Amino acid sequence: MDSVTAEQTGGRKNRPVRRSAGSQAGLKVPFIRRNIPTYDILSEENLQRIEAVADRILAEIGIEFRDDPAALELWRKAGAEIDGLRVRFPKGMLREILASAPPVFTQHARNPANNVEIGGSAVVFSPAYGSPFVMDLDKGRRYGTIEDFRNLIKLGQSSPYLHHSGGTICEPVDVPVNKRHLDMVYSHIKYSDRAFMGSVTAEERAEESIEMARILFGADFVDQNCVILGNVNVNSPLVWDGTMTKALRAYARANQAAVIVPFILGGAMGPVTSAGAIAQSLAETMAGCALTQLERRGAPVIFGNFLSSMSLRSGSPTFGTPEPAIGSMVIGQLARRLKLPLRCAGNFSNSKLPDAQAMQEGVMSMLSAVHCGANFILHSAGFVDGLLAMSYEKFVMDTDFCGALHSYLAGVVVDDNTLAMDAFEEVGPGSHFLGCAHTMRNYQTAFWDSALSDNEPFEKWSEAGSTDMATRANARWKKTLAEYEAPPLDIATDEALLDYVERTKRAKPDAWY
Amino acid sequence: MDSVTAEQTGGRKNRPVRRSAGSQAGLKVPFIRRNIPTYDILSEENLQRIEAVADRILAEIGIEFRDDPAALELWRKAGAEIDGLRVRFPKGMLREILASAPPVFTQHARNPANNVEIGGSAVVFSPAYGSPFVMDLDKGRRYGTIEDFRNLIKLGQSSPYLHHSGGTICEPVDVPVNKRHLDMVYSHIKYSDRAFMGSVTAEERAEESIEMARILFGADFVDQNCVILGNVNVNSPLVWDGTMTKALRAYARANQAAVIVPFILGGAMGPVTSAGAIAQSLAETMAGCALTQLERRGAPVIFGNFLSSMSLRSGSPTFGTPEPAIGSMVIGQLARRLKLPLRCAGNFSNSKLPDAQAMQEGVMSMLSAVHCGANFILHSAGFVDGLLAMSYEKFVMDTDFCGALHSYLAGVVVDDNTLAMDAFEEVGPGSHFLGCAHTMRNYQTAFWDSALSDNEPFEKWSEAGSTDMATRANARWKKTLAEYEAPPLDIATDEALLDYVERTKRAKPDAWY
Repeated sequence: MDSVTAEQTGGRKNRPVRRSAGSQAGLKVPFIRRNIPTYDILSEENLQRIEAVADRILAEIGIEFRDDPAALELWRKAGAEIDGLRVRFPKGMLREILASAPPVFTQHARNPANNVEIGGSAVVFSPAYGSPFVMDLDKGRRYGTIEDFRNLIKLGQSSPYLHHSGGTICEPVDVPVNKRHLDMVYSHIKYSDRAFMGSVTAEERAEESIEMARILFGADFVDQNCVILGNVNVNSPLVWDGTMTKALRAYARANQAAVIVPFILGGAMGPVTSAGAIAQSLAETMAGCALTQLERRGAPVIFGNFLSSMSLRSGSPTFGTPEPAIGSMVIGQLARRLKLPLRCAGNFSNSKLPDAQAMQEGVMSMLSAVHCGANFILHSAGFVDGLLAMSYEKFVMDTDFCGALHSYLAGVVVDDNTLAMDAFEEVGPGSHFLGCAHTMRNYQTAFWDSALSDNEPFEKWSEAGSTDMATRANARWKKTLAEYEAPPLDIATDEALLDYVERTKRAKPDAWY
Repeated sequence: MDSVTAEQTGGRKNRPVRRSAGSQAGLKVPFIRRNIPTYDILSEENLQRIEAVADRILAEIGIEFRDDPAALELWRKAGAEIDGLRVRFPKGMLREILASAPPVFTQHARNPANNVEIGGSAVVFSPAYGSPFVMDLDKGRRYGTIEDFRNLIKLGQSSPYLHHSGGTICEPVDVPVNKRHLDMVYSHIKYSDRAFMGSVTAEERAEESIEMARILFGADFVDQNCVILGNVNVNSPLVWDGTMTKALRAYARANQAAVIVPFILGGAMGPVTSAGAIAQSLAETMAGCALTQLERRGAPVIFGNFLSSMSLRSGSPTFGTPEPAIGSMVIGQLARRLKLPLRCAGNFSNSKLPDAQAMQEGVMSMLSAVHCGANFILHSAGFVDGLLAMSYEKFVMDTDFCGALHSYLAGVVVDDNTLAMDAFEEVGPGSHFLGCAHTMRNYQTAFWDSALSDNEPFEKWSEAGSTDMATRANARWKKTLAEYEAPPLDIATDEALLDYVERTKRAKPDAWY
């Protein structure tokens, strides 16, 4: 039953202690150690049927690798069948290659207290990634800037319920495309002391991102330890573009972790039925993960997944819908059979506002990530409008929900204290437990206490202004930014990073596409 | 793994076909046959530890039965130890008694197409129950009236995603307390053709509710079949009030199903730690369920659960929080070990508005009900403000979410069609699946299509008025009420019911408390 973890261990000691109720100032954990099992929904027989289709896709149809002759050469040497750009994989070949990828690894943060484990029973929450737009209740939607980028990192860093600083937390469109990554990586290092992600939009940008990590951690350390992640997408269906495989190989070459993610909108980039879309996702991800191992055997890699659905009325992609949510459980089972760390789902919504739709879709999607056993949950906070905008309000609402998930993942702890036989003996029938010794001993850590949910009686809520959650979130992000303090950064390191950014920027003309 | 169901069967054929996208006019199912397993989080060893504490509570501390000497007499005859009002149960006694309760039964509706199965792999969604207040965006919060009561039944009946008409869908406070149940039961029969619930607030009211069911179904039929449910609450901790046990026995005596529900706010009516609260809940529910069997062996009964948490800042009860959500999974496991149909959780929130908080808390809570294997999910739609108000907007938002859960519970179907090998062969790498034969064959039933979520691009949403979900829900309930048509009811039956209501009301003076 407990595929990932023994419920008896771990969860409680990793549970944050909240000293001041409703504040985000409690003791924090660097990541969650899950204390509930994964939610496995498919039988062995049906998993094997999906794997068999993935194997057939790989062997009979194959995958195209475009604009990356070196990748084709790696495949040829490994024994794949090359036909132009098309690569076909003999049955079993990819599984054999994948055996060298680590099932669990540590990504180091500049503050070692924030190192995260990725794989096994660890769960890491990371902000949403890649939106061109940002929005808030005051100014509405607009393109993201480097100032928004920094603000969102600061909000993330200020929450004890995220564990990772993320990557392209929004696109800073006021910075040239070919220099953006330098400012982004610098901002992660400067304004957060957590682990972070680098660029993948060009091989050079991937390498420069990694180079900045070397300045921060030292080149030898980086060669032996994971300090930066790169999130690479398959061009589904069944195409790997050279930009992505070159970035993927750059991360692997440096012993850094690529996150391998197909992006399948069922009915568009994959079949309209979940089982087929999952088989395709498995085939595409296995090929990408295996390529990292051909580039550098033993390099860390994360098995990613991005199932989605589409509106068959408008053709729009839809997010936070039930089919991808339940489909993620199957992806989780398949990834564990490959013994690879998993990235799954996240907090998705199509809503254009931080409203009921945003949280309905977001919670369904985020819970699926947690249930399916995802180890690295990118997009844990901020997304609205499909994947197009980061909402400041939604960001703090989601980090608050991440806090609730810390308690949820702690599960139901069963021991003499929690079984509370002494409380029943003290209280008996018809009385109450408010002041009994057991309650006094346990109340401080008993229940998650949201900073954004209103739990007051109607009258008190009404007197306090009858606010909705979005309005409270608006006040909260402003207060958080006003109170933000940057974590200390060694001055010499800071200067070396700034110098590198400056030199690298100067060496190339601005490009805006 | 699949504790409740084989995933291979059932779900697909019970899945509603949506002919017109976004409408609620699709073909409907009378209830859901779940096609995903339950989410079992605790090990055998820990379940046994909880059961052992429940057994000790029952044997050592016992439960008080107040104001119902007949109940004490039933316990005495069954072999319990009676000490004043306190009843102590020798180990194993209740489990033995419970063996006669049916694991699955059918509740009949006046339209047989709407009969629901309760137990096993069946899932039945029923509206929220018991709020004194109602609210909508136009008129705000006010006390519920019989007009609101009828409106909410009509909204429920109009949704293909609820399966049951519920009971006290709101309190009609404009009708005397001692006559309310007559108008409520009549309204359920008149405005809905689904199964429904009767009164439990006094033995007489329970019996009159059942009598109305006899007029509708015939006395002999009622004696042999379940046609009405009564939801009775434990006065936690460890007290059963006579009002409730008399109502419970009235339902059992008539071979109708009582739903046995402790209401435990951790830290107040039970221990502040989940494991202890769950043990208490198990003890209280077992006693109530067993009493139905002493009253009438073989009477249907539902194992209920209502775990909740409290704000340790304000002392307010809190709903939709993580601890009760994950705790419900354990209750589900325990109920299945007793082989009893389960009622669990529902869609709870403390929010005073149909906002982000309402859906965040509601979805977490509702998904826990679905995951834990609840068969009868009371409170599937409408609750806001703790349990104090029914929101018209939240009601239609929640029924829409119930629609999404139909697709979710269908799971991932694995067969030759869904595996889509023909689609991969037709499409190949780098193309799209929009027009391929597989898509054309499957798109109509592929994805849940919400009637309330906005999936349009930002610009189209903006042109259409930049609405939030609550605003769209407001328009929707008005349209639904305007278009509502009552299901046909036999005129003689209608007249007999009206006559009974009239006579019964006339026979007693109004009481307002």
